[in-house]
Amino acid sequence: MCGVFGIFGHEEASNLTYLGLHALQHRGQESAGIVSSNGQALNLFRDMGLVADVFTAEVISKLEGKSAIGHVRYSTAGVSKLKNAQPFMVTYAGGQLAVAHNGNLVNSDALRRSLEQSGAIFQSDSDTEAIIHLIARSKRSTLEERVVEALSQVQGAYSLLFLSEKKLIGVRDPFGFRPLVLGKAKSGYVLASETTALDLIEGELVREIDPGEMVVIDEDGVHTSRPFAAVRKGRCIFEQVYFARSDSTLFGLSVYETRKKLGIQLAKEQPAEADLVIAVPDSGVAAAIGYAQQSGIPYDVGLIRSHYVGRTFIEPQQSIRHFGVKLKLSAVRATLKGKRVVVVDDSIVRGTTSRKIVKMLKAAGAIEVHLRISSPPITWPCYYGIDTPSRKELIASSHSIEEIATYVTADSLAYLSQEGLGTAVNDPSAATFCTACFSGQYLTPLAVAPQ
Amino acid sequence: MCGVFGIFGHEEASNLTYLGLHALQHRGQESAGIVSSNGQALNLFRDMGLVADVFTAEVISKLEGKSAIGHVRYSTAGVSKLKNAQPFMVTYAGGQLAVAHNGNLVNSDALRRSLEQSGAIFQSDSDTEAIIHLIARSKRSTLEERVVEALSQVQGAYSLLFLSEKKLIGVRDPFGFRPLVLGKAKSGYVLASETTALDLIEGELVREIDPGEMVVIDEDGVHTSRPFAAVRKGRCIFEQVYFARSDSTLFGLSVYETRKKLGIQLAKEQPAEADLVIAVPDSGVAAAIGYAQQSGIPYDVGLIRSHYVGRTFIEPQQSIRHFGVKLKLSAVRATLKGKRVVVVDDSIVRGTTSRKIVKMLKAAGAIEVHLRISSPPITWPCYYGIDTPSRKELIASSHSIEEIATYVTADSLAYLSQEGLGTAVNDPSAATFCTACFSGQYLTPLAVAPQ
Amino acid sequence: MCGVFGIFGHEEASNLTYLGLHALQHRGQESAGIVSSNGQALNLFRDMGLVADVFTAEVISKLEGKSAIGHVRYSTAGVSKLKNAQPFMVTYAGGQLAVAHNGNLVNSDALRRSLEQSGAIFQSDSDTEAIIHLIARSKRSTLEERVVEALSQVQGAYSLLFLSEKKLIGVRDPFGFRPLVLGKAKSGYVLASETTALDLIEGELVREIDPGEMVVIDEDGVHTSRPFAAVRKGRCIFEQVYFARSDSTLFGLSVYETRKKLGIQLAKEQPAEADLVIAVPDSGVAAAIGYAQQSGIPYDVGLIRSHYVGRTFIEPQQSIRHFGVKLKLSAVRATLKGKRVVVVDDSIVRGTTSRKIVKMLKAAGAIEVHLRISSPPITWPCYYGIDTPSRKELIASSHSIEEIATYVTADSLAYLSQEGLGTAVNDPSAATFCTACFSGQYLTPLAVAPQ
Amino acid sequence: MCGVFGIFGHEEASNLTYLGLHALQHRGQESAGIVSSNGQALNLFRDMGLVADVFTAEVISKLEGKSAIGHVRYSTAGVSKLKNAQPFMVTYAGGQLAVAHNGNLVNSDALRRSLEQSGAIFQSDSDTEAIIHLIARSKRSTLEERVVEALSQVQGAYSLLFLSEKKLIGVRDPFGFRPLVLGKAKSGYVLASETTALDLIEGELVREIDPGEMVVIDEDGVHTSRPFAAVRKGRCIFEQVYFARSDSTLFGLSVYETRKKLGIQLAKEQPAEADLVIAVPDSGVAAAIGYAQQSGIPYDVGLIRSHYVGRTFIEPQQSIRHFGVKLKLSAVRATLKGKRVVVVDDSIVRGTTSRKIVKMLKAAGAIEVHLRISSPPITWPCYYGIDTPSRKELIASSHSIEEIATYVTADSLAYLSQEGLGTAVNDPSAATFCTACFSGQYLTPLAVAPQ
Repeated sequence: MCGVFGIFGHEEASNLTYLGLHALQHRGQESAGIVSSNGQALNLFRDMGLVADVFTAEVISKLEGKSAIGHVRYSTAGVSKLKNAQPFMVTYAGGQLAVAHNGNLVNSDALRRSLEQSGAIFQSDSDTEAIIHLIARSKRSTLEERVVEALSQVQGAYSLLFLSEKKLIGVRDPFGFRPLVLGKAKSGYVLASETTALDLIEGELVREIDPGEMVVIDEDGVHTSRPFAAVRKGRCIFEQVYFARSDSTLFGLSVYETRKKLGIQLAKEQPAEADLVIAVPDSGVAAAIGYAQQSGIPYDVGLIRSHYVGRTFIEPQQSIRHFGVKLKLSAVRATLKGKRVVVVDDSIVRGTTSRKIVKMLKAAGAIEVHLRISSPPITWPCYYGIDTPSRKELIASSHSIEEIATYVTADSLAYLSQEGLGTAVNDPSAATFCTACFSGQYLTPLAVAPQ
Repeated sequence: MCGVFGIFGHEEASNLTYLGLHALQHRGQESAGIVSSNGQALNLFRDMGLVADVFTAEVISKLEGKSAIGHVRYSTAGVSKLKNAQPFMVTYAGGQLAVAHNGNLVNSDALRRSLEQSGAIFQSDSDTEAIIHLIARSKRSTLEERVVEALSQVQGAYSLLFLSEKKLIGVRDPFGFRPLVLGKAKSGYVLASETTALDLIEGELVREIDPGEMVVIDEDGVHTSRPFAAVRKGRCIFEQVYFARSDSTLFGLSVYETRKKLGIQLAKEQPAEADLVIAVPDSGVAAAIGYAQQSGIPYDVGLIRSHYVGRTFIEPQQSIRHFGVKLKLSAVRATLKGKRVVVVDDSIVRGTTSRKIVKMLKAAGAIEVHLRISSPPITWPCYYGIDTPSRKELIASSHSIEEIATYVTADSLAYLSQEGLGTAVNDPSAATFCTACFSGQYLTPLAVAPQ
Repeated sequence: MCGVFGIFGHEEASNLTYLGLHALQHRGQESAGIVSSNGQALNLFRDMGLVADVFTAEVISKLEGKSAIGHVRYSTAGVSKLKNAQPFMVTYAGGQLAVAHNGNLVNSDALRRSLEQSGAIFQSDSDTEAIIHLIARSKRSTLEERVVEALSQVQGAYSLLFLSEKKLIGVRDPFGFRPLVLGKAKSGYVLASETTALDLIEGELVREIDPGEMVVIDEDGVHTSRPFAAVRKGRCIFEQVYFARSDSTLFGLSVYETRKKLGIQLAKEQPAEADLVIAVPDSGVAAAIGYAQQSGIPYDVGLIRSHYVGRTFIEPQQSIRHFGVKLKLSAVRATLKGKRVVVVDDSIVRGTTSRKIVKMLKAAGAIEVHLRISSPPITWPCYYGIDTPSRKELIASSHSIEEIATYVTADSLAYLSQEGLGTAVNDPSAATFCTACFSGQYLTPLAVAPQ
Repeated sequence: MCGVFGIFGHEEASNLTYLGLHALQHRGQESAGIVSSNGQALNLFRDMGLVADVFTAEVISKLEGKSAIGHVRYSTAGVSKLKNAQPFMVTYAGGQLAVAHNGNLVNSDALRRSLEQSGAIFQSDSDTEAIIHLIARSKRSTLEERVVEALSQVQGAYSLLFLSEKKLIGVRDPFGFRPLVLGKAKSGYVLASETTALDLIEGELVREIDPGEMVVIDEDGVHTSRPFAAVRKGRCIFEQVYFARSDSTLFGLSVYETRKKLGIQLAKEQPAEADLVIAVPDSGVAAAIGYAQQSGIPYDVGLIRSHYVGRTFIEPQQSIRHFGVKLKLSAVRATLKGKRVVVVDDSIVRGTTSRKIVKMLKAAGAIEVHLRISSPPITWPCYYGIDTPSRKELIASSHSIEEIATYVTADSLAYLSQEGLGTAVNDPSAATFCTACFSGQYLTPLAVAPQ
């Protein structure tokens, strides 16, 4: 779970990258970094924390030049330290190079082992470092050729930005797991994980980068090529369901509209007798509105999300325990009291949060709670960049829907079907999406069997 | 704009105060402080910043004892410095005393002048310090008597908490401008600005403190008295409209429900031909849902609020200006495109934010924007604790509704009537509320004519 | 233990105050603060820490105006918190007032009790706050008259700076316990604890402020008066022996020269058979050089002081304990090996440090260690501003010199006599100095008998 | 200019490393870092700043295990950023490896170019990273063999510590430019740049590591080998003259004693008619005492060094300029007034500091200032790890002694001869030292001609 942003040919490159990263902050809150190029040399700053905390005006002013790339990160590997913060910046035979990566490789252990055998050293735990080694070891003469040669040895999910002294390069893997769009901001070209970053800097969307496509942006403009034949589109369905910001257009679809359609479809498949429909904010709101519209049951606000949730809270030792959800969400008694409630959420992972939410709703007076999930049960871990736990921890891997309903103390529980999901994204068989987390049908070979 | 929280007789007094302040964070984001009592002596910690940033586990552990009071502050006086952060803590003839104040006095300048003439020194710009002087100068023997004598010389808005080595005292001014509730958390009694703080710490609401009431909590329990005869209730209507958190119960009314009724009433009074109703999040959501329900026009999400809005952002120098609203709100194109939109907000102050919102909606494709405000035009400044600007800056003080509509570039603009407002709060003539910001009818004499 | 610095009529008032405080940093390392006046209003900044850490260029730039006072503090009261950091700044009937205090009052408890009885509140633990109350309560019309009236009720040690919008005032108590000098820096007048602060800012010494004298500096220049008749001079002998910086001229005496004379006198009184003389750096260096010159025994460096001693060190848990002195001082084996050493220090307080030093010297190879102290035994606590412990902790209060020698494991131990001390400061009977710490003859009544 | 410390087999490895680095703080103040091993895995923490500021008790507690290495750094390359802070820590085919380096390679550019040609990436500007690449690329099976193979390709100055999961390795280059000693602390073995680090942790010196020697410390004890034949000893003379701490024993010589001998020799070669001898503290003190003893002119303190010099000071804009030296040193008027003064310093680099010191002494009343330097003129830059500027900036490269005397405004100026220097270190022809900075006779080939 990461976000990337790059810009080429704009007087305020690092400042716009900073704003672009802020717009992508939902994709990663653990570290943030920017590398800029002044045409001669690269400069890097990165640190743990939110974009607004990591960068000061003084730091931004030192990230000089007309091109830049940036990264926000939420560790996919569980280890989260400064050494893993991106962008990475190195020197190699071709000069300086910075890289920002969204996604996750599936053959990184093998790559790493092989690179180490031939003398490579690794300073991070990140699979991205293997890509840099492959580029540096390529015997090709141009950066573009080196990138292509390197990525041809790599399997898995990647939307990658590279910055050299003179060029900005964007590449998307042949399956197109992670999003990447091309935009324009005045004289400059932009590459970003989501369109919301373009909106914030008042840029315009040009188009989505295709799966398997590489774009090279330099003084002469944008050059495109398709070095990696796309076997089949494998766009991450979970970006639509939960991860992307709902004002983005992703894979050509409005995320908000998609989520609303998920709710409409869910209402068709899994109706409920109830007095009102509420959402688990914020990602469940669109689906809840769709559910309400389709079902005719009024939509209302039953849960409020705090704007001030810090990441470290000092918990009481004795009187109150397991505070997490309460700090983030609170129930609206006036809405809930004496009501039969449909509550719409996007997914259930371990079930613990859903359990707390249902209990909170009942404590606030709801007499029935019908939990509706706007996607199928998550039964398989993601190896392509979404931070899901192992099967053992995924409640739906080992429990029936009835068992889950009992655990979360809901009066009823129902999920959207896989067909319903496909219908909502205009691809009934979901042939252009990766749905491995629901189906277990991974699009690439995996290094080890999923656990 | 401040929030107060106090607790007496609980093993984890300072920790619960910390959590209570977090729940009241929307009432003030500039500074936070806690004073605890271990029965012998008081301990204070306060600093600039959010509750979660000001307090560490180490600091909380040093705030020992079974009683505590806390405060979050947004400067009502424009000057915002550490010296004005509350609680204040002093020693005086009666021992140690801490105070936390929500509200604003209208005779503080006169009091201050008079106190200074008789030799008092002031270390802050806050009107609260005058109250402490009056208490210290009282010849009465008990703290309760001193507090009553002091407050009898004071005019204006106050919900006050006092903490001594042995007692927690809460007082609300005779008009009851600012809220204050009594709750219970296990063995301990709680006083808080809003019920949402009770919910977070899993306490229960006992009742609202009455206008003019004083409660004294000590080892023997809760003692109540009504030393200040309430002339007339003057509960701040703006707490209901905008300021309080919507999951709170305030003045006996569910804030969420009130806001929804405001929307319903607004739809009755000010209908619009449109395809959908959207809210300016978060305070406009309840009213927008009410408007949608009453009008039959579908409710949808047209604006999304960022979770990561820091207070200081590094703005681009050349390419983009006037960024503020865009960092906080973004428009959902899929919802808005080609649509006639009713957008519901709670109020218009200067008009600049509304103008940016309307422009943002049109840039995202809305073909008509009908702005509906769920309260009457704000034409007078508040002297009772809400931070509104002078009449010169209040756009409705000097412009007609048509002129405002033109300025904000809305296709139509309409406000809720004062009668409609009264109806929504079950008090058609608003005889138990202060509506001075709408009507100019101030409930107390003012030191100077409103400007 | 504190230092004060003030300047009036200089374009860079706050910057020079910052530098002056840096020069006085040895007088207090716990907190630092500056108040400046732009002629209309005062501005304050203070925080815990060293001068160089507390102030940034941005903070200094906000402390605008042509006059300023500053303060460095080492708590005399044992409690050390931000609320006690000086300068204090208040508003009162006469306008704004800031105060910086070096010294300690002996009737502060009584003053405080009396002020509290008449309604005063205290926000700090500092005795300085009582002085401000007395000024504010004075019925006199000018600040000068108020200050005189206030200080006439006060007993003890004070070198005080007051800053109002238009004036800088300096006052020294009738005994002249603590130093205070008047200087000039270009167009501006300076008041400072020591001449070293003048040297750093390239100012010149005008003269010492007399005991009992008040100087008022305003647009018309320097006005002097002597409102407090000096009964008898009581200049702190310990400033000369240990506390002041050795490059300062204090009470008309070069501190360095005085300390050297102490060493000369000590050699006369307490010779030793030895191979070399070393100092406990830095305060013992001048006396050691004097001792060496007089005795003819070569001076050498046997102990080195670290430049990087932070105040909080993480000590090993098991293998090494009682680290303090080793982090600050290290022994030079080459100098010490096989030698009989005279080690000169300025004083012994508890004896624990001396014991560690002697052991360190012997571990480094010294075969005999003769400890010579360049002042008489400290047997009484100071109530005038030096932070000495109670009699119980002062080793010389309850132990003979032989017992102390045994405790510190020295082969011999000898102190300078009181007569020798007087001789070194050109006042054989020490009639113009306070020597209470050596003699127990306090110059003022004390609130309680010394313990 | 760097310091290294390592320990193997001690329960408090990271805590003792922290203390050891504190003792070596004079060797580098810009960054500090520690890597520990718990036998299974390495842990790293490093940051910009002083040892006491970089490490907290929490950080130390996370650096678990019985072995550790640490590093303090002052950039030799001019670029100083976190990425260059050491130790470096990597994974490679052999597992995990950390390295800490004191010294400077002379063929690092060529090595880097060659490594980059074969595909290596560099994440720092440090020459140390090249060594790690060479180790990782070695086909040898053990770490020891890899280290030897790697270092056989390297030219220049290095005292290196390596830490793997199971071993601590120390190596010194064949010339022995930089110091490295072996010590013992209870059950553990220690490697450190200087003996002062051993003294602080109450360890004992075992012996100096020989030029060209490698020691490997593991569970079985200390294993030594001499893989690199020492052509000729080239111990850095400047460590003795200036860089090392004077309480250390370095290259078998007491640094303090050496410096004193330099002063004695200087007095023989370059007498002066004067009333007293003073030092530029702290590094000039030993030589000044030697000069005084030899010449019979009394030693005294004429300059005092501040304990509170921070690295960033806010300078006045108008009234005072060129502040640097004044913040660090102040003159003692009482000592200097009317005196003819010999002032002893260890070296002159650019001449600007000496000029300020001479002016300061005269401003304090000295009537003659005779500057004596306890080493020959520095005329060539160091490529072996001391941060000297280019020839253009070295005043003695382009000016005669008379010209320098005129520039620094001294009444006379004289340097120690090269022969005198050799005599003081018991090696009259300096055949076992590197004196390139004085002679231009570099012991290794250089990549480019010295400039």
